[in-house]
Amino acid sequence: MKERLTIVKVGGAVVEDEAQLMQLLRDFIAIQGPKVLVHGGGRRATKMAASLGIETKMVDGRRITDAAMLEVVTMVYGGLVNKHVVASLQALGANAIGLTGADANLIRSVKRPPVPSGDGALIDYGFVGDVKEVQADTLARLIQTGLLPVVAPLTHDGQGNILNTNADTMASETAKALSRHFDVTLIFAFEKPGVLRDADDDRSVIPTITRSDFERYKADGTISGGMIPKIENALAAIDAGVAKVIITQSTAIDGQHGTHIF
Amino acid sequence: MKERLTIVKVGGAVVEDEAQLMQLLRDFIAIQGPKVLVHGGGRRATKMAASLGIETKMVDGRRITDAAMLEVVTMVYGGLVNKHVVASLQALGANAIGLTGADANLIRSVKRPPVPSGDGALIDYGFVGDVKEVQADTLARLIQTGLLPVVAPLTHDGQGNILNTNADTMASETAKALSRHFDVTLIFAFEKPGVLRDADDDRSVIPTITRSDFERYKADGTISGGMIPKIENALAAIDAGVAKVIITQSTAIDGQHGTHIF
Repeated sequence: MKERLTIVKVGGAVVEDEAQLMQLLRDFIAIQGPKVLVHGGGRRATKMAASLGIETKMVDGRRITDAAMLEVVTMVYGGLVNKHVVASLQALGANAIGLTGADANLIRSVKRPPVPSGDGALIDYGFVGDVKEVQADTLARLIQTGLLPVVAPLTHDGQGNILNTNADTMASETAKALSRHFDVTLIFAFEKPGVLRDADDDRSVIPTITRSDFERYKADGTISGGMIPKIENALAAIDAGVAKVIITQSTAIDGQHGTHIF
Repeated sequence: MKERLTIVKVGGAVVEDEAQLMQLLRDFIAIQGPKVLVHGGGRRATKMAASLGIETKMVDGRRITDAAMLEVVTMVYGGLVNKHVVASLQALGANAIGLTGADANLIRSVKRPPVPSGDGALIDYGFVGDVKEVQADTLARLIQTGLLPVVAPLTHDGQGNILNTNADTMASETAKALSRHFDVTLIFAFEKPGVLRDADDDRSVIPTITRSDFERYKADGTISGGMIPKIENALAAIDAGVAKVIITQSTAIDGQHGTHIF
């Protein structure tokens, strides 16, 4: 039987609020067994870019990453946010190690080619990487020596270039790859208590979703909009060997709350 | 008999010139056996600070690191420079892993208290760390799994704070600590071909210096000024177990050139 491992993905809003971050890190280290933290940092990057006179352009919620923006995200995700989280975890007694996909060749990606937009024009996202390969053996070995990886949303292309990579994708690809070595629970910590039946009622959390539940909820309109691709991704992770995906509030990452997808 | 390990320290001027950096990295990976790269990045930090409207203040060649400057060096050393070097080494086939002293709790430091200046006033260097402890066992274990550490000049205080730390000091403290595990050669790559008898003649490299040579050269004035503390530090590393310290040009790090101190 494989050992249980928990991967928590936490977004920029929590990472950039000191009080929320500290609470999350305390809750995180209270989770039993080996674990991995994947963080965002988009708001901080947007602020840093503005301070440097660099305009942030987003398309469908994704950052257009030209050469100047790539420097900003490399600095902010890989330096400022990652090292702050690592030093904070160390202060809490957890042996954290900060990693990007370039470090130890952990996560290789390919630069996304320009993609057609809704109106048929091509959108060039720039230095954005789509994950190609996760070196699960190397990551598992680091974890097995007692280290706690803190992963920044950056990958590399193997040709010397860092690429900006979506943190949710980093988390699910890492979860899939590590499921060869561990019994993986992947927790997406966000601002809502889970997948809601009624978007305006935080008490309407759907406790469990399987693929057949999902098809039914989609058909009857209970689940719609941006939640559909989130759950599609979660179910794809399950299909690829991840034991459980939990969508929950960042203040409730103990595995007992939120929506459990399996 | 201990395995030989080489630590190369390279300064900001080389790291920030793409052609020089690539040549240095090629020469670096050609060195046989396990190795560690320690880099600076001060000029890049100064430029980034200026772009953010933050003034750089230096005292005796050391950066005054207030809270804003700490963010800059954390971003630039830990993110921009470190990840660029790591991705470049990966492209050359070397399994590099970027590390600060906070990662895996490798290098702890204490914040330097204000120190008296020449005129008796106190100088507060701010968030600058003096190295207290290097976790040589952890670093040796990473190296023994085939990873090539790329170390940024940042440490942590164990209380959640990153501290700016002199890269030469990082290199010599790491060399001392690793000498329990390895037969360590420490190479300082700089702009001159070695310690010169005549500062104006690059062909006047002194090939070897022992402590007794050093005392003689100091007494007769052959070695003076800023070279004295550099060699004092090198000899202190030798006393602490480092096999050899080489001061050489960044284009000649093969161990056959420069001034060899032992």
